Amino acid sequence: MGERMPRRAGPGATAAELIGALTDRGLTIASAESLTGGLLAAALVDVPGASLVFNGGIVAYATPLKRTILGVDEDLLAERGAVDAEVARQMADRVRRVCAVDGRPADLGIATTGVAGPDPQDGRAPGTVFIGVAMPDQVDVIALELSGDRAEIRLGTVGAAIDAALARLARD
Amino acid sequence: MGERMPRRAGPGATAAELIGALTDRGLTIASAESLTGGLLAAALVDVPGASLVFNGGIVAYATPLKRTILGVDEDLLAERGAVDAEVARQMADRVRRVCAVDGRPADLGIATTGVAGPDPQDGRAPGTVFIGVAMPDQVDVIALELSGDRAEIRLGTVGAAIDAALARLARD
Repeated sequence: MGERMPRRAGPGATAAELIGALTDRGLTIASAESLTGGLLAAALVDVPGASLVFNGGIVAYATPLKRTILGVDEDLLAERGAVDAEVARQMADRVRRVCAVDGRPADLGIATTGVAGPDPQDGRAPGTVFIGVAMPDQVDVIALELSGDRAEIRLGTVGAAIDAALARLARD
Repeated sequence: MGERMPRRAGPGATAAELIGALTDRGLTIASAESLTGGLLAAALVDVPGASLVFNGGIVAYATPLKRTILGVDEDLLAERGAVDAEVARQMADRVRRVCAVDGRPADLGIATTGVAGPDPQDGRAPGTVFIGVAMPDQVDVIALELSGDRAEIRLGTVGAAIDAALARLARD
């Protein structure tokens, strides 16, 4: 998964593919979102049958919520800000347990953090995005430099996050 | 606020109005979503300047997350299911504190629970929706019977939730 431009098509088709892949494998998913602000969760929920595999999600938009709800390391956030690969890694990992159902963590955690713009954030340029994909054994982090306006960067992030989750499942 | 049909226009204009009203008053907001699955949070975040007033949100899609993350009463959920006026009231009230920033709860909590369809849930028909709007002194709950497909019911719920929050602010 390298850098990629924002896609013009919506993420609906790949969201359905991801929900299908999770259903086939009997796996559940949870989302932790910053810049996408709920758009990733909404894309998943839009797929009929999503309720069988989508536990829920956290929209940790204000930086302190990444610590208080998700348990991202406080010193990390203070030192590097919210737009950071390790922050994405921790968000993806920890949302699995925050969204545990009946004591069972979600099998897959997916996280987005980045800058939708138009202004920089934490010294990072608009379009700087990190995606985390966590399963019990390993967390992948993908760094992207997207171009476009706020909506395009958000939509591109959602599409890339779904692609990353599909790629992770395909490795098993 | 009585029953209303799903609107054809998107909730973008009223989301901008709500973010503007909150900004003018120096108030913050947090969302707790079930059937809308992140769409309400995404509508708010889509407005430039939302980061000044939108703390974050919880997508408590699986029913147990309404208890574990938001603290909705367990017996209430067991007795009445997730599609219930009192569940909406507790979701709106409690997300204010779950999404507190620097110890300050969000001033306004907004919650959605209901049935997007096509199948009934917890004995409730598709289109049955409850919206909660919480401020420190009072929680309003609005019951809706929406028609349409899954996407229309979700979009109608987001629009009605934003309208309800605007109506609440206009009362102050």
